[in-house]
Amino acid sequence: MQTTLDCIPCLIRQTLEAARFVSKDEELHRQIMKDILGAASLLDFKQSPPAFAQQIHRRIKAATGNEDPYDQAKKTFNVLARDLLPEIRGKIADADKPFELALKVAVAGNVIDFGINGNITESDVRKAVGEIIKSPIEGNIAELQQAVQDHQRILYLADNAGEIVFDRLLLEQLPLQRVTLAVRGKPILNDATRKDAEFAGIDKLVKVIDNGSDAPGTILSDCSAEFLEYFENADLIIAKGQGNFETLSNCRKNIFFLMKVKCEVIANRTGFPVGTHLMLKTTTKGEHEEV
Amino acid sequence: MQTTLDCIPCLIRQTLEAARFVSKDEELHRQIMKDILGAASLLDFKQSPPAFAQQIHRRIKAATGNEDPYDQAKKTFNVLARDLLPEIRGKIADADKPFELALKVAVAGNVIDFGINGNITESDVRKAVGEIIKSPIEGNIAELQQAVQDHQRILYLADNAGEIVFDRLLLEQLPLQRVTLAVRGKPILNDATRKDAEFAGIDKLVKVIDNGSDAPGTILSDCSAEFLEYFENADLIIAKGQGNFETLSNCRKNIFFLMKVKCEVIANRTGFPVGTHLMLKTTTKGEHEEV
Repeated sequence: MQTTLDCIPCLIRQTLEAARFVSKDEELHRQIMKDILGAASLLDFKQSPPAFAQQIHRRIKAATGNEDPYDQAKKTFNVLARDLLPEIRGKIADADKPFELALKVAVAGNVIDFGINGNITESDVRKAVGEIIKSPIEGNIAELQQAVQDHQRILYLADNAGEIVFDRLLLEQLPLQRVTLAVRGKPILNDATRKDAEFAGIDKLVKVIDNGSDAPGTILSDCSAEFLEYFENADLIIAKGQGNFETLSNCRKNIFFLMKVKCEVIANRTGFPVGTHLMLKTTTKGEHEEV
Repeated sequence: MQTTLDCIPCLIRQTLEAARFVSKDEELHRQIMKDILGAASLLDFKQSPPAFAQQIHRRIKAATGNEDPYDQAKKTFNVLARDLLPEIRGKIADADKPFELALKVAVAGNVIDFGINGNITESDVRKAVGEIIKSPIEGNIAELQQAVQDHQRILYLADNAGEIVFDRLLLEQLPLQRVTLAVRGKPILNDATRKDAEFAGIDKLVKVIDNGSDAPGTILSDCSAEFLEYFENADLIIAKGQGNFETLSNCRKNIFFLMKVKCEVIANRTGFPVGTHLMLKTTTKGEHEEV
């Protein structure tokens, strides 16, 4: 999906939040902001929002000399999620519909997104996971459950650190031998990389690959040949988070997007209000491009 | 006061709102946004936020060829305020503290601000004015009341159209022969110009001047010689709205700012939360520069 004009003030705000997150130096914040404002003035709106976020974070990394500024935040939220895991796993085991509950928890974990909200706290995550158990999720869960049974090459696109620990609970409901999980190729924001998949122990369950890219989404033209082979061969893709939706919503593949709706642009596009826990299916016709 | 980094995403959002307000042409919105992003990348942060807003609106006017894009909105809110006037005037006449109530209504009228919120509605204004009567206002009202008695040359700096009709009620509490009211020199956003002062009948009560400038505030270096003479000679200034605060808060004059606190930057600077109806006094030491 293309970047909308409404994305611009939000991306500029994200730039400032990210600059402040990675450094306390106000002069550096000013330089980064001016640099990104200049880049935004030349923006190709045909690009997706994650393509611009990729530019933002490349510049922040270059300006600070820090290749993984969210390293500590990722660890913190991985540990938090791991600490919550035994209790939630118990609830899933006891649930009438364990697949549905695992899916809900995986979507609730999508709240851990430093792109949208750089001030997310551990208590926000506890609250989101606690509430999801009694909340509905929009989407036909049975359809995904059936699709999982019917397809052979399932590719699961992870989104954020912390969240990926909750993804493990959904993975445990899938036919593991048919699943590959993909993470980002390089650090970008608090998105999950191979290290986080390993922290979650997912590499012991399924094959883990990375996509070769440092975009906070899946920009196919930026992904590695290895990833593209898995992507092309997959007959079912489960894609977590807005970044994957923004980059793949026009893709003619069989994709189930699982995400929390976090901004008005995505609310308008999907037809579900901000805050919705959503499962949205594309068809092979890439219908969401026309929404 | 200088432009903060937090002002930038807000000013970019205001640009988009203003572009959409003045034209339905999406390609024009994109051009205006790119133009302003480029200008923001070169921003001198020593300027006040209204100096950048002035640049934004000059570019919007040039791009659309419309010198007064908020003309209709100004008329609408002037008429709305005029329609509410008899009822409020009655309440002021019956009030225990008519000066205080007139002051409150003048501050409540500051809600009519298309810079901060381009979607302000008539019902927002009715609500704001209705609520203010029972709400407190921060600040020592008796101090202003005393100052009005003690000073000879009172300059009242108006802010927005619509709001200026409510200002009339406060003006009616002042020693009219000692008061001059100043409006903006040219159309900018929905700020009041001479036309609006005349609509409110204020030219029949006090001398009305304009400041010669098209900034949504009072940038002294941009004001006319006539205005500067009145400004220098004034021994008491009553300044409405954030724009006047942002441009005059470091000024070594005897100024009472009357405004609604509308953003976190001003909340941090004044120490009063967003939404506060506030009367804030500077001293001749320009103390607010150090806040």
